[in-house]
Amino acid sequence: MKDKHRAEVLTRALPYIQKYFGKTIVIKYGGNAMISDSLRESVIKDIILLKCVGFNPVVVHGGGPFISSYLDKLNIDSKFIEGLRLTDSDTIEIVQMVLGGKVNKDLVTLFEKHSGKALGLCGMDGSLLKAKPLDKSLGYVGEITSVNTDIINMAINSNLIPVIGSVALSEDDFKIYNVNADTCASKIASALGAEKLILLTDVKGVLVNPPDEDSLLSKIRLHHVPKLYADKVINGGMIPKVDCCVEAIRMGVKRAHIIDGRIPHSILLELFSDDGIGTMIY
Amino acid sequence: MKDKHRAEVLTRALPYIQKYFGKTIVIKYGGNAMISDSLRESVIKDIILLKCVGFNPVVVHGGGPFISSYLDKLNIDSKFIEGLRLTDSDTIEIVQMVLGGKVNKDLVTLFEKHSGKALGLCGMDGSLLKAKPLDKSLGYVGEITSVNTDIINMAINSNLIPVIGSVALSEDDFKIYNVNADTCASKIASALGAEKLILLTDVKGVLVNPPDEDSLLSKIRLHHVPKLYADKVINGGMIPKVDCCVEAIRMGVKRAHIIDGRIPHSILLELFSDDGIGTMIY
Amino acid sequence: MKDKHRAEVLTRALPYIQKYFGKTIVIKYGGNAMISDSLRESVIKDIILLKCVGFNPVVVHGGGPFISSYLDKLNIDSKFIEGLRLTDSDTIEIVQMVLGGKVNKDLVTLFEKHSGKALGLCGMDGSLLKAKPLDKSLGYVGEITSVNTDIINMAINSNLIPVIGSVALSEDDFKIYNVNADTCASKIASALGAEKLILLTDVKGVLVNPPDEDSLLSKIRLHHVPKLYADKVINGGMIPKVDCCVEAIRMGVKRAHIIDGRIPHSILLELFSDDGIGTMIY
Amino acid sequence: MKDKHRAEVLTRALPYIQKYFGKTIVIKYGGNAMISDSLRESVIKDIILLKCVGFNPVVVHGGGPFISSYLDKLNIDSKFIEGLRLTDSDTIEIVQMVLGGKVNKDLVTLFEKHSGKALGLCGMDGSLLKAKPLDKSLGYVGEITSVNTDIINMAINSNLIPVIGSVALSEDDFKIYNVNADTCASKIASALGAEKLILLTDVKGVLVNPPDEDSLLSKIRLHHVPKLYADKVINGGMIPKVDCCVEAIRMGVKRAHIIDGRIPHSILLELFSDDGIGTMIY
Amino acid sequence: MKDKHRAEVLTRALPYIQKYFGKTIVIKYGGNAMISDSLRESVIKDIILLKCVGFNPVVVHGGGPFISSYLDKLNIDSKFIEGLRLTDSDTIEIVQMVLGGKVNKDLVTLFEKHSGKALGLCGMDGSLLKAKPLDKSLGYVGEITSVNTDIINMAINSNLIPVIGSVALSEDDFKIYNVNADTCASKIASALGAEKLILLTDVKGVLVNPPDEDSLLSKIRLHHVPKLYADKVINGGMIPKVDCCVEAIRMGVKRAHIIDGRIPHSILLELFSDDGIGTMIY
Amino acid sequence: MKDKHRAEVLTRALPYIQKYFGKTIVIKYGGNAMISDSLRESVIKDIILLKCVGFNPVVVHGGGPFISSYLDKLNIDSKFIEGLRLTDSDTIEIVQMVLGGKVNKDLVTLFEKHSGKALGLCGMDGSLLKAKPLDKSLGYVGEITSVNTDIINMAINSNLIPVIGSVALSEDDFKIYNVNADTCASKIASALGAEKLILLTDVKGVLVNPPDEDSLLSKIRLHHVPKLYADKVINGGMIPKVDCCVEAIRMGVKRAHIIDGRIPHSILLELFSDDGIGTMIY
Repeated sequence: MKDKHRAEVLTRALPYIQKYFGKTIVIKYGGNAMISDSLRESVIKDIILLKCVGFNPVVVHGGGPFISSYLDKLNIDSKFIEGLRLTDSDTIEIVQMVLGGKVNKDLVTLFEKHSGKALGLCGMDGSLLKAKPLDKSLGYVGEITSVNTDIINMAINSNLIPVIGSVALSEDDFKIYNVNADTCASKIASALGAEKLILLTDVKGVLVNPPDEDSLLSKIRLHHVPKLYADKVINGGMIPKVDCCVEAIRMGVKRAHIIDGRIPHSILLELFSDDGIGTMIY
Repeated sequence: MKDKHRAEVLTRALPYIQKYFGKTIVIKYGGNAMISDSLRESVIKDIILLKCVGFNPVVVHGGGPFISSYLDKLNIDSKFIEGLRLTDSDTIEIVQMVLGGKVNKDLVTLFEKHSGKALGLCGMDGSLLKAKPLDKSLGYVGEITSVNTDIINMAINSNLIPVIGSVALSEDDFKIYNVNADTCASKIASALGAEKLILLTDVKGVLVNPPDEDSLLSKIRLHHVPKLYADKVINGGMIPKVDCCVEAIRMGVKRAHIIDGRIPHSILLELFSDDGIGTMIY
Repeated sequence: MKDKHRAEVLTRALPYIQKYFGKTIVIKYGGNAMISDSLRESVIKDIILLKCVGFNPVVVHGGGPFISSYLDKLNIDSKFIEGLRLTDSDTIEIVQMVLGGKVNKDLVTLFEKHSGKALGLCGMDGSLLKAKPLDKSLGYVGEITSVNTDIINMAINSNLIPVIGSVALSEDDFKIYNVNADTCASKIASALGAEKLILLTDVKGVLVNPPDEDSLLSKIRLHHVPKLYADKVINGGMIPKVDCCVEAIRMGVKRAHIIDGRIPHSILLELFSDDGIGTMIY
Repeated sequence: MKDKHRAEVLTRALPYIQKYFGKTIVIKYGGNAMISDSLRESVIKDIILLKCVGFNPVVVHGGGPFISSYLDKLNIDSKFIEGLRLTDSDTIEIVQMVLGGKVNKDLVTLFEKHSGKALGLCGMDGSLLKAKPLDKSLGYVGEITSVNTDIINMAINSNLIPVIGSVALSEDDFKIYNVNADTCASKIASALGAEKLILLTDVKGVLVNPPDEDSLLSKIRLHHVPKLYADKVINGGMIPKVDCCVEAIRMGVKRAHIIDGRIPHSILLELFSDDGIGTMIY
Repeated sequence: MKDKHRAEVLTRALPYIQKYFGKTIVIKYGGNAMISDSLRESVIKDIILLKCVGFNPVVVHGGGPFISSYLDKLNIDSKFIEGLRLTDSDTIEIVQMVLGGKVNKDLVTLFEKHSGKALGLCGMDGSLLKAKPLDKSLGYVGEITSVNTDIINMAINSNLIPVIGSVALSEDDFKIYNVNADTCASKIASALGAEKLILLTDVKGVLVNPPDEDSLLSKIRLHHVPKLYADKVINGGMIPKVDCCVEAIRMGVKRAHIIDGRIPHSILLELFSDDGIGTMIY
Repeated sequence: MKDKHRAEVLTRALPYIQKYFGKTIVIKYGGNAMISDSLRESVIKDIILLKCVGFNPVVVHGGGPFISSYLDKLNIDSKFIEGLRLTDSDTIEIVQMVLGGKVNKDLVTLFEKHSGKALGLCGMDGSLLKAKPLDKSLGYVGEITSVNTDIINMAINSNLIPVIGSVALSEDDFKIYNVNADTCASKIASALGAEKLILLTDVKGVLVNPPDEDSLLSKIRLHHVPKLYADKVINGGMIPKVDCCVEAIRMGVKRAHIIDGRIPHSILLELFSDDGIGTMIY
């Protein structure tokens, strides 16, 4: 009987709902989950559900593909140094506009459309994010030096979901800097003393034998991470992701998760089951 | 894929969760759902889930079978006049003990066991329920004259589920009276300005042709009720139940539901779908 | 002139009222003061007066005689091992019913009758009292391991007098256990950081020569207690009472009093004079 | 037994304590009760007791004799027109100093001495009392036009007893005016929606045959007052006192009392018995 | 002496500071004051000063010139119908990005730079602004149908200056619409029950003989406006500005001001003097 | 252009307003600034302005000249021992009356006249100031032993400016004592953890060559004070003033200022410029 099944799914969710009630969950939103319309809707609904059942989700996003597309339209060339975009004053203006005006507000709109009240924020608002230059040669690329949690808590206490675009203000001269969204989410999670940091990615998680998706490591203890680096199990693009997780946990976040944003409802699947679907570092 | 299905069930519950967030739902708990161990557990879990997702459930219960059993053990004869137990001073003492000390505290214990914080209350606590004699010849059987909502709201605001046994104090001389639990739930729902009154029963709901369970009336408008009485569609034991619902709605409760407590998770099934499984009066 | 005298009594109470304003006073209620109708009324009025003048009385009670009476009526034999009732599952059910449903609610009713708002609680409510078995061979007899003060403070802050029956929930399996009411009062006083613990008994206090009531020790310093044990001045049934007092004071309660509940208004007499009428340990 | 008696006096006060809990009682303090040291102490203790048991006493005072004494010392002649002091600028300066600096602060000191926290106020503080000239020919004699209750409520909410000297600020030019203390108390009682107004006087109350103190009228209904005026039962100095009471009751105060401040603890005797000792108008 | 002069300027500001303390002032920011760096800084400092002395400024802005510039860079042609930009889906995306990501966040940054905490908002945030299409043929150009003041009040209560970009969400399908910033400010002022609406423009105010700047009308009563329309004193681009003011006053705003944003510190000059520098409608 | 200049003065005040927002500033008010009508008005307006822009000014005053004048009028001789008035019981009565009833209430009236809400307090109110005798031979001259900040904070939180007269209650016997107003201000500033202590005097500040007013020391570091004493730069009547400042800073006050109350608006000139006009110790 279908109805009965539905009810059982709901009651089986109960212990997870009780477990995370009132807890802060910082979600780095990006990758395919941000590009595909149907995935985007599934992520937004998941996050609204978390809010409804009493968790405090905080969304952090970048917007690489949208930025590139606008730079193209405006014929601004992008140069990259070791994977990082050289960001001159023309480029940072586009970054600011696309992250703060386009991606951020589109996400807010999608939350509102599904009856989830959201507040779009950037690092400028109330000096939420302060940064210093990561490397002078990269131009307006920064690393976060402080997070003003007042403004995030104000949103949470007003029952709004904070949606934060990853640009920051420089400390002394109030210039706008682009910051990496994964790191940004990690720093925000640390500053808020969050229960969890969740990174939505385009991979299954940490795989022992990358082509074999069944070789997923579901759980990694913090002190096993160095060996996994040494053994090159964690490598390539996974390194900065795991670094973010490790940093967050060191700063007091309970658990960090790297999950596959390509799977619909991946956030719920990770939070509402014991095994989860990605890799948890704790 | 099973996981995916689970996630979809949860997100489909979202609009219902949003709809009843912060609303008060008074549940008359009784019948088989109170006797069977597995049903009892299913009801308790449903109610905790309602609390967790932000509703304010208030539980009202009687305890007929447990009372009868103790009267038997103590060799106290029960006389009934038109279905109402003649309640002398020996009997009301047993009623008070069984409802307030046994049934009420067992329910509270069950909530606590499943991590749902509950507060057991009777009509005496803070003079929660005041009553006058229903009919002098029946002894200590009363009808409610006032509800002190302060104490219920205190519990709700402290994140406790109020569990209320249906005994009351007489207005002038502070004697204890037995009151009908359905009526009690209806009065409490009215006093709280509840969103919903739910009566857990041992029937499917209002049936046009009683033996045929497919003849269930899912929804009845308030002004159609008199005709259903006249046509004897509503008859027998269903009459006082419908009376309770009608009275509650007249006093400002939005909707009243008569549902089948024999079906596991009947509360969730009624609240988290458009059709529901019982009869709704509105 | 009689009136003048009355006014003087009231103004002489002023320094005591100022002294205990806003302080928590835990009163173990039992013995004759709970059985005699007139004494019961005098105790209830005293406690309401304490509440009215701004103290925070918390009432803790057992109910031995009422339990025995019901066990008799139901032909359940009571076995005792070293003064402790062997409590099987049939017995604990009666204990729960009588304490939680009869004694507790009768006390609450009496408070309400004299316009003192009261809230009846047992250890199950909000998991107020948690316990572990005292000795496996005694069955459902427990000793308290934790007190959830939230629920007591909720009552105090809502201007309700908490009236607490001495049954508790076991820590892991949520079984109901009988706990000694004196110890229960002592633990609650400690957990609340109470100003005073008052044990209502059926003796005058600690007597140097027991038959001689004039040999009452009005005040005992904590460090004199061991010598009084050694000298057998404290002996027999007085030992566990003094133990409760000593334990409470060690855990931070300011003063503990053993007073004679057979004297009308013994609580007021103890609190509103410098000498008091019983034995104070400090 | 003396102790027992004391306890009974206290418990007999209980219904009165419950009756006036949280209620505001405005007391016009004056006459012999302000001059005699022992009476002053008895009044102060009574008022602190009222505060301690949860009432909200508000004290209003003038200071005629003290003013006259200082005017004498400074050789300032007092002229009276129909019993009202002609108040020129030299005189009002003395009135202000004596009421605000001497009488008011001495009363506050006495409250503090008996552990009752008090706040001395005059009409200037926060523009508590605004007035207009009563009659230009009288100089700085005013009648109250508005009361700023904020500042009185601030004191009450901070658990301070407000002690108010009867001087006021003129509405437009912020000059200081002397106002009659009885009227002042009546206006303040009205503005606060007080439960009671109590005028401490040097007579027993309203007497049918003035020399015969047994002819006291204990209670007068508001609508009987006009006949008592007509019959000259109320006459002489009693007229403005009764006028104040009548005005207060018309503006919403529940009851007004004229009592004999020469009797020690007259306030307690009036409030803590059914008959009282003075005249109540209601 | 220069210092003395400075002090006098400050104390002369006192009555104006007292007058508007805690009052809401909605400022439509635009024109040259938004383009010139030095004017922009002067406006930002003025608004921070208003916040510091206890007013509640709310800033509303459009961004026409910046939008046009980006449309040019992207080779998107702008068509205008009766002065209104035909806004297709490509255009509205640019409007959203420029207003929400560029102009809004640049203003917020400027506030932060001068130590004034600001929160950048668009109509999407918490569904702050809802709109319906103004005219289907114009595409995504809307008129406001509702303002959610909760989110603005949240900012005010958190001591943040709300800075609001004039884009809105359509009521049913959650599309983004461009709305006129003057009208937007007027609607927000009405919804907030603001004390004042201030429109920063590039003209002196309403002039009787336009070329003659001395012919400024400092104050216009609401009921004189129709005659000024009839007499063509109000004409051209001034008409919609005056319409906004009239509408705001009709909806409960106390006063509306049209002032010259080209004058440094025009906001302070208007608010801190009796005459002001522009045209006030009341 | 005059207007423009005014606006610039206001915006230049902005950083100072931001700097002291919400900070407590204790001002000892005395000397010529209290005697001259025009200076008094200028001081009162300055303090109201501080309150309006969000600082928390606390005013402390003595009243020497007014006291002497009344003692003269009443033919009470004043004897002085080493500059301190021998204060017998007749004298302290005048001190109390003049400070508490005349000077204090006149200041409060002046604040009210200029729309600044003020609360007049003396050391008796809520036992605000407690003292012990400074030297038995001086009579009722005391030194402060404790400050009850509750009552000052109550005033601040109610948006009232506290105006405090320098008389205190003795600790055990509740006699009234005269206390030095400078020391009083210093103690209050320490107890409140104030940002600043400002002493209004009749000199320019600390001068290196006293006749030469240009030899003013604008800033003195705390550790330079001893040398200035040794060098007799600080001498005569300046010594106790500097002592007060030093004591306040040692007890946690950030900065102390000795400024010339003869200059109109000296408080604003000191607070709203970098250099100030007097001597700052820090």
